[in-house]
Amino acid sequence: MQDRAVKEGFQPLKKASTMPTSPRAPPAPPSVDELRIGDLADLRAQDLSKLYTFAEDREEIYISRLREAVAIKGVSAWVENRPKIVEMLEWAKAWAERLGAAEARFVENPKKGEDATLPPLLLITFAAETNLPHDKVRTVCAYGHLDVQPAKKDDGWDTEPFELTETKDGRLVGRGASDDKGPALSWLWVVEAHRKLNMKLPVRLKLLYEGMEEFGSEGLPEFVAREAVPPQPRFNDAKREITLDFKNAGWLSDVDHFVISDNQWLAKKTPCLTYGLRGVAYFEVIVSGPAQDLHSGVYGGSVHEPLNDLIHLLASLRHAPALGGMHHERIRVPGLLDDVPPVTDEERAKYATLDFDVEQYNREDVTGAQLENATNEKTLMARWRFPTLSIHGIEGAFSDPGAKTVLPRRVSGKFSIRQVPNMTSARTEALVTSYLESQWAALGSKYALEVKMVHGGPAWVSRTDHPNYVAASRAVTKVFGKPPDLTREGGSIPVANWLADATGMNVLLLPTSASNDGAHAQNEKWDKVNVTNAVKVLGTYLHEISKLVGPRPALCKCAPPTAEDLAKPGFFAFAKGFRCKCEL
Amino acid sequence: MQDRAVKEGFQPLKKASTMPTSPRAPPAPPSVDELRIGDLADLRAQDLSKLYTFAEDREEIYISRLREAVAIKGVSAWVENRPKIVEMLEWAKAWAERLGAAEARFVENPKKGEDATLPPLLLITFAAETNLPHDKVRTVCAYGHLDVQPAKKDDGWDTEPFELTETKDGRLVGRGASDDKGPALSWLWVVEAHRKLNMKLPVRLKLLYEGMEEFGSEGLPEFVAREAVPPQPRFNDAKREITLDFKNAGWLSDVDHFVISDNQWLAKKTPCLTYGLRGVAYFEVIVSGPAQDLHSGVYGGSVHEPLNDLIHLLASLRHAPALGGMHHERIRVPGLLDDVPPVTDEERAKYATLDFDVEQYNREDVTGAQLENATNEKTLMARWRFPTLSIHGIEGAFSDPGAKTVLPRRVSGKFSIRQVPNMTSARTEALVTSYLESQWAALGSKYALEVKMVHGGPAWVSRTDHPNYVAASRAVTKVFGKPPDLTREGGSIPVANWLADATGMNVLLLPTSASNDGAHAQNEKWDKVNVTNAVKVLGTYLHEISKLVGPRPALCKCAPPTAEDLAKPGFFAFAKGFRCKCEL
Repeated sequence: MQDRAVKEGFQPLKKASTMPTSPRAPPAPPSVDELRIGDLADLRAQDLSKLYTFAEDREEIYISRLREAVAIKGVSAWVENRPKIVEMLEWAKAWAERLGAAEARFVENPKKGEDATLPPLLLITFAAETNLPHDKVRTVCAYGHLDVQPAKKDDGWDTEPFELTETKDGRLVGRGASDDKGPALSWLWVVEAHRKLNMKLPVRLKLLYEGMEEFGSEGLPEFVAREAVPPQPRFNDAKREITLDFKNAGWLSDVDHFVISDNQWLAKKTPCLTYGLRGVAYFEVIVSGPAQDLHSGVYGGSVHEPLNDLIHLLASLRHAPALGGMHHERIRVPGLLDDVPPVTDEERAKYATLDFDVEQYNREDVTGAQLENATNEKTLMARWRFPTLSIHGIEGAFSDPGAKTVLPRRVSGKFSIRQVPNMTSARTEALVTSYLESQWAALGSKYALEVKMVHGGPAWVSRTDHPNYVAASRAVTKVFGKPPDLTREGGSIPVANWLADATGMNVLLLPTSASNDGAHAQNEKWDKVNVTNAVKVLGTYLHEISKLVGPRPALCKCAPPTAEDLAKPGFFAFAKGFRCKCEL
Repeated sequence: MQDRAVKEGFQPLKKASTMPTSPRAPPAPPSVDELRIGDLADLRAQDLSKLYTFAEDREEIYISRLREAVAIKGVSAWVENRPKIVEMLEWAKAWAERLGAAEARFVENPKKGEDATLPPLLLITFAAETNLPHDKVRTVCAYGHLDVQPAKKDDGWDTEPFELTETKDGRLVGRGASDDKGPALSWLWVVEAHRKLNMKLPVRLKLLYEGMEEFGSEGLPEFVAREAVPPQPRFNDAKREITLDFKNAGWLSDVDHFVISDNQWLAKKTPCLTYGLRGVAYFEVIVSGPAQDLHSGVYGGSVHEPLNDLIHLLASLRHAPALGGMHHERIRVPGLLDDVPPVTDEERAKYATLDFDVEQYNREDVTGAQLENATNEKTLMARWRFPTLSIHGIEGAFSDPGAKTVLPRRVSGKFSIRQVPNMTSARTEALVTSYLESQWAALGSKYALEVKMVHGGPAWVSRTDHPNYVAASRAVTKVFGKPPDLTREGGSIPVANWLADATGMNVLLLPTSASNDGAHAQNEKWDKVNVTNAVKVLGTYLHEISKLVGPRPALCKCAPPTAEDLAKPGFFAFAKGFRCKCEL
């Protein structure tokens, strides 16, 4: 067995998909019990109570620190404010240095050559303070972003968006308070607490901060791909052992567990772990007509109009509401639903346990919207596990206030499809293109049609019995006195895919923000109670990670799973963090 | 008869529509022969040849003067450039003063209270230099605008748009050269020529210059309504006569003939008089949903989407091209075509005489567009005499480049209907609203629909045998050696309606720009040959007006036609300038 492993280990890892796979049937997945680390008595025995008391006592200091951060107007969509993002990153870097970080440095944004305004990425490492050997100390990498969405008081804010304002009912109102400055900076508060309390940091903690998240994370996928380059396995013939050479490996290559606190709970008070996201396939359908825009009075009637044809085409994407049914049942693209997994009884049972009330959702979360479905179960299924097709708008047509009488020469309709597990962007693109082309032919338009998938990302789902999730679940349970809801989300957080795909390591979404924080809206807030709760949960999570048994996933010497591997029933048991091919 | 007239004359003119109308049947309309002023021999006898020679000799000076005007960047759509419009108006005012204008003054824009950036209107009067009594000397008012459309070299101009550039093939390229600085300033060149040549100005010439035309003529309709207040008729009992008291009358109240040079010929070389315009009824259909925009990932599938419903509604306005037929035949609003006048043989015959070639139109005017109809006749009918329904765009949806995944909360679809004679905005509004509401009900949308007619203007048509047109036709014939084409246009020039409706006087559209001048496009140009031609035609037109026989239309003492009047067959014979009720 080892011979085979050795032989495979010497292959360049990039060619993983061409490697022969083990002829052995994969073992049964480990049960959740095997993954339990200690028991509840064990949890109680940890002396984290002083960490909790410290965090509570420090609340006012945390708030004043957050106020400083909110005041730095690092809006990535405002190009002229990009220097403010750098200022924000400098602010965090200086703080990490004061906390004795082993490393706190900027790396140039990989796309800076194309856009000189792009801020750098900030990399921070805090060393683990244990006597354990290197291969027993896990590395946790927390990702966060320090840029924010645009905000102006005139947009409808009750207070100045860049002045953190505390309200009587315990809200900390300010742009970025919840998305994502508060949660992202909580990691530094966790380290600070350890320093002040002379507690030892139980894991190696890496912080990856970017400043372009709210503008498409420009350069981040390139950075992740570059820094995920794994260590090179070396075969020691005498000892018949493989060792890993980290010399040319990337900054992310020794990370065992990724954690992101950049989404929201399903509820206002009940915390959750998020284990699934939908992917998004974004389309443009372009109708090109005359060489220039024409005046609808002077030319109207004599020429065919590209916008009229596009409107007909867009209308053919989904049935009108009169047809009834759920959203996905009115999508008219044939075959699009074929790969959607059927709903199992087990899955159905889960929805009933969640802290979610469709009537409250209707009243408070989507005020004024009309719900497609009246039940908790259908509403959550529609958001999490069924695809959608939504039209977003038209580029090239008249879109300003007022009354302009233009016949636009070239119009581009924008729509997107949220993809669920099993759907692939390639198949989605083929189905959509074929359908639109057939509809176009039936319309009899005289113009040229172009269908483009602008980008396509798959859904992302993690197993919730992965040790990374188990550790987080125990941390939340300890702090809140109840286990977290296990939720999915309808949106896409591409960095979760990028990190998981590039490194093969598990990614945990551990939100510390309530469902009504209004991440991109007016009067964004973070609940005051969540400032200390975030420090408690994230701190506890690091301690729970340190207690995980078994080999470090990042030191796994086997190749990433191949497409063949992934196609085998039960293969997921091999996923890193459970058990690896190289251990077998 | 006079008793009746006196009695009616003392009524406040504003209440015209309630006045009893004459029981007498209207007389037959005058034949065109009656309106002929002199004959061709007469025309030749006029000594305008020295005016023509002078204009030709002065071409270079005209061009350098136009260059000065083009350099003043008075773009009304650029709010920060509004002071430049004032500078442009000052420039024209100073010139008029140098030419000895009897009056050259600014009046504050009537809407300045609402928008302090609005430039004033410029009013200029040149006195007539004849010995004839006041009631025999006609007043001509020429309207023009001195603001321009936006332009930047980056938009695709070959040269700097605000630097007038003369090309080898005789084009004067620059923003505003053709629309409308060149034509508007030609009136000053006409006066200048009279001064330099010691010729007597044969009519009273008023110039009305505005600086907001390219941004909706803000304040102009209010100005026109205010300054059209007619003189008060006074009854002299002893003499049994009516006199007109101009004391409280408006600046426009003594105008006999309006003339506008702000549109284009049908052809590149053949001049035309334009006697008809379509009116425009502009609609917004608004679908209002959630209290705020929602993220299509987070919320997509759980809520109904206003934009999807609007797209279905807009698609129901017109059939797809596959149905065939002409544009108006695919409009789906029931009843909209009911009032469209049938095509007569006489009308059909006219199209064949015009300088228009649909193949050249296809190749050069609407490059890249697909024509609805392959014949001259159908193409012109579709532009001039049939209504259209064109979608312009959507406000509130995503319209920028890139890929945003928004579910817009409130979207407003914009479309307009070009109205032809007999169609009324009130009926169009009722038909469209009723149709959209029935379509909306069928869609099963859960949201609220609002249908708004933002503005509605009727079509405008003038008789081409009106003396104002006869004078212009004779002027064009003299200068070009051939009579002008008589054309309509598909677009709307609201000021033509405003002036005609408010004063009851005839409005003449006398373009001096070629069909390919590109009024709102890149590389706008005015043909060099048209600079001198404009001076010649406009100057000749004033002389032709001075030779008209009969009473001055502005001194007509009868009330404006009532709705009942207008409904009588043949009533149009009474229109001012032909013969008035008060003369009968």
